[in-house]
Amino acid sequence: MIGEVDLRNGEAAGPFLFVCEHASNSIPAEFGNLGLDPAAREAHIAWDPGAIGLARALSDRLESPLVAGTTSRLVYDCNRPPDSPSACAGRSEIFEIPGNLDLDAEGRITRTEKIYLPFQAALTRQLARTLARGRRPVLVTVHSFTPVWFGQTREVEFGIIHDTDASFAQALFDAARDLPLRAALNQPYSAADGVAHTLKLHATPHGLAHAMLEIRNDLLAGAAGQQAVAAHLADALTRALQAMPALERIA
Amino acid sequence: MIGEVDLRNGEAAGPFLFVCEHASNSIPAEFGNLGLDPAAREAHIAWDPGAIGLARALSDRLESPLVAGTTSRLVYDCNRPPDSPSACAGRSEIFEIPGNLDLDAEGRITRTEKIYLPFQAALTRQLARTLARGRRPVLVTVHSFTPVWFGQTREVEFGIIHDTDASFAQALFDAARDLPLRAALNQPYSAADGVAHTLKLHATPHGLAHAMLEIRNDLLAGAAGQQAVAAHLADALTRALQAMPALERIA
Repeated sequence: MIGEVDLRNGEAAGPFLFVCEHASNSIPAEFGNLGLDPAAREAHIAWDPGAIGLARALSDRLESPLVAGTTSRLVYDCNRPPDSPSACAGRSEIFEIPGNLDLDAEGRITRTEKIYLPFQAALTRQLARTLARGRRPVLVTVHSFTPVWFGQTREVEFGIIHDTDASFAQALFDAARDLPLRAALNQPYSAADGVAHTLKLHATPHGLAHAMLEIRNDLLAGAAGQQAVAAHLADALTRALQAMPALERIA
Repeated sequence: MIGEVDLRNGEAAGPFLFVCEHASNSIPAEFGNLGLDPAAREAHIAWDPGAIGLARALSDRLESPLVAGTTSRLVYDCNRPPDSPSACAGRSEIFEIPGNLDLDAEGRITRTEKIYLPFQAALTRQLARTLARGRRPVLVTVHSFTPVWFGQTREVEFGIIHDTDASFAQALFDAARDLPLRAALNQPYSAADGVAHTLKLHATPHGLAHAMLEIRNDLLAGAAGQQAVAAHLADALTRALQAMPALERIA
């Protein structure tokens, strides 16, 4: 159903709060197919392939809640604010999105209300309940990226991105040295590219430790790959948390 | 009704978005009177006396929306995160709040869900609709403070507080030099005291210009006083906006 949000392990008491904004490539019937052919609707422009499988595995392994979207980011990208051109992108990489080219203010408001606001409300509620219990989770968003972008091959396999507080991202990068994944900080992009909206809204105002995980999606092509990456990342996340000084309130 | 949020001029197209978290001293019946006598329930600990009259006058004069709370901050202070001890304070200045002394996690969650989350949802929605229209409002929160605090008289009449971006607060302070009000930046307290929660959640992540206005409440004792202060502040806010360089997106 449009506006539905996928909450997993909502009562789990683990130290993380996972978020997967780009979990789904579903385009609700009322938006037609945005004028896209089936190949485009399956491509990375519509979602982060493999990310939800990885995010669910992390949520289960680390016994921590997961909040995930259920609608394609081409209808509304929940990791973008409503005034961002890429909230309802007219173009993404080499693809034009016909259904978004002539979107007017009313159309943007409709999508904001039907998709962005329910997602924000679900995440705000999950975080608020955890904070009210006196627990301060590490906020971790789970993404995947395409191995080839505008014809260029990307060598990095595991990108770790942060907002203003780099401490947990740095600890995670240090822990990732032991993984069989080529890790990099703030690759293949960084907060300066506008990709840290969820972190800016939900981690930084509360002074919460945080990181955005970006996995190259060829590593997440099937369930076995997703589980293998999840095992590595769960290990690194756990060690990163142990390496952090006692988490203190910043805000 | 508990959880109700007071939205005024929701479709107005002016340049500000006003917020009044401490508008009301209403304590819903299910919370009894929190063990307080009538004098305490009327005192500044329960609300910001005069603030809602001022906020409504500013909203009307500047043709800009206002989002206001409808429940006493002693039940839940909507300008505090759910993990803050002062979200449901057990003590405020010289007053003890009996109904808050033994509040457990479930009690905090109940208040968070009934009061904080609806307030956050209403403010998030109002701001998101404005952003989706391509307008980036200046976020202005409206507060009042007590002339006497722990026996000490406060000389400042108009405090201007900001989060990390001081630019609009500075412009407003400059404009306030022409007003018959003793103005001060970051008085009688500042973001370091944890009073900037609304700004941190709704202004800073979007890179919006912002200020928190604090008016000494003896100046807001009646409707005439509230209108007089509103006239002065509307003038200063307008001149401050004119003095700002073209507002650019930071985030």
